[in-house]
Amino acid sequence: MASTKPLILVVNDDGITAPGIRNLIDVANQLGEVVVVAPDGPQSGMGHAITINSTLRADEIKIDDGPQTEYAVSGTPVDCVKLAVNVILERKPDLIVSGVNHGSNSSINVIYSGTMSAAVEGALENIPSVGFSSLDYSWDQDFEPAKPHIKKVMQLLLKNGLPEGICLNVNIPSPKSAPYKGVKVCRQANANWEEEFDSRKDPRGRNYYWLTGKFVNYDKGNDTDEWALENNYISVVPVEVDFTAHHAIATLNNWDF
Amino acid sequence: MASTKPLILVVNDDGITAPGIRNLIDVANQLGEVVVVAPDGPQSGMGHAITINSTLRADEIKIDDGPQTEYAVSGTPVDCVKLAVNVILERKPDLIVSGVNHGSNSSINVIYSGTMSAAVEGALENIPSVGFSSLDYSWDQDFEPAKPHIKKVMQLLLKNGLPEGICLNVNIPSPKSAPYKGVKVCRQANANWEEEFDSRKDPRGRNYYWLTGKFVNYDKGNDTDEWALENNYISVVPVEVDFTAHHAIATLNNWDF
Repeated sequence: MASTKPLILVVNDDGITAPGIRNLIDVANQLGEVVVVAPDGPQSGMGHAITINSTLRADEIKIDDGPQTEYAVSGTPVDCVKLAVNVILERKPDLIVSGVNHGSNSSINVIYSGTMSAAVEGALENIPSVGFSSLDYSWDQDFEPAKPHIKKVMQLLLKNGLPEGICLNVNIPSPKSAPYKGVKVCRQANANWEEEFDSRKDPRGRNYYWLTGKFVNYDKGNDTDEWALENNYISVVPVEVDFTAHHAIATLNNWDF
Repeated sequence: MASTKPLILVVNDDGITAPGIRNLIDVANQLGEVVVVAPDGPQSGMGHAITINSTLRADEIKIDDGPQTEYAVSGTPVDCVKLAVNVILERKPDLIVSGVNHGSNSSINVIYSGTMSAAVEGALENIPSVGFSSLDYSWDQDFEPAKPHIKKVMQLLLKNGLPEGICLNVNIPSPKSAPYKGVKVCRQANANWEEEFDSRKDPRGRNYYWLTGKFVNYDKGNDTDEWALENNYISVVPVEVDFTAHHAIATLNNWDF
């Protein structure tokens, strides 16, 4: 007899053994039939990268005693979603959940985030999709305060779906500041990284660089994800896959190309 | 005496020796002082990936007799822009040009494209930026028919700049269909890839996969980049780095989080 439970695909970018995804699987198991298709190692900062010049592996593995099925993939988070939807899953999933990321994906970080790129890929496939990220980077953080909120968002997505081409970017303040004040629907703050590169010498005297930098919020609005998170709210930003700056078309039409 | 010429940063994702970037450098040399900071090998499909778990190299090299300065970087196109702006260049560039990509980056391909991610990174740094892509994938194609149009776009960007947070995605029909009808400012078509994975066995009998698929345009509008390209126009789409689906916020505010 076919399952009548919703089919939930779980993915992340910190790798299939990260505590964030193990906790997300735990919540997903309460709501549906769960298939995990996640990178076999860390893929942070991979953005919407896909593997086109190399091959992919997807090996079924067993990590804990939960009822979910799991596959470890040799590629990026977006590769995981494509492989899951096109090869591994027998039917289209009802929901794609990505994360829980160890670290913030608020504001402009959505563009660098493998966690969010998996959700964006879900939106491209017209599947309700959401990325969850915790503002705490530590590996051994407590996910319990976040779990009821994560479950609620998943229940709402299973019930309401999402408009075509849109997914959700959910960021959760550090568990150290729980209980949270609630959930706020926000716009992406106008913030960015002021990069610095740490320049070093290798043992043979050649230069090499490490990317570093600090996050700067230029946006004083109180309708942004940064404002919500600073004020101990969980932020929810609807993210869209049409990147056209429609409002700029009129200006450009006056250029003499 | 300091140069009064505009400073133009040239980047790509096919690698620093690709014919597409060599032709772009040739055009840039006609308009300003040129610094090339480009990947030391192919980086197609890398999207907005950045190197955060590993180190970066940037080696000055000489490839041809042109007046430009060149650096080959061990990372992604976005790494190249960040390294150029923060480490290599002595002042902020007046223009960033990326490409010319061997292959289309129209419609949704902007999200996978290393070429366009370099331009998007430029927009994040508030530098007028543009990605150029040819619909022809061949390595030995003729870039001459595209060059006057590429030069014109660069001249307009140097003269007019761009609104904050916006860059241009310029796609050029195959040189085989030149002369082109002209330039059209467009929106991104609602199109996507219908993926397939080619499943194979390795010499030890284990499964592996190659990503493949076909591009499908669901959008019948005649204001899209796909329409322009099919009708032998060069397409110009303004691309924006605010990914908020502002029109969806009102709906989500009615959800019972």
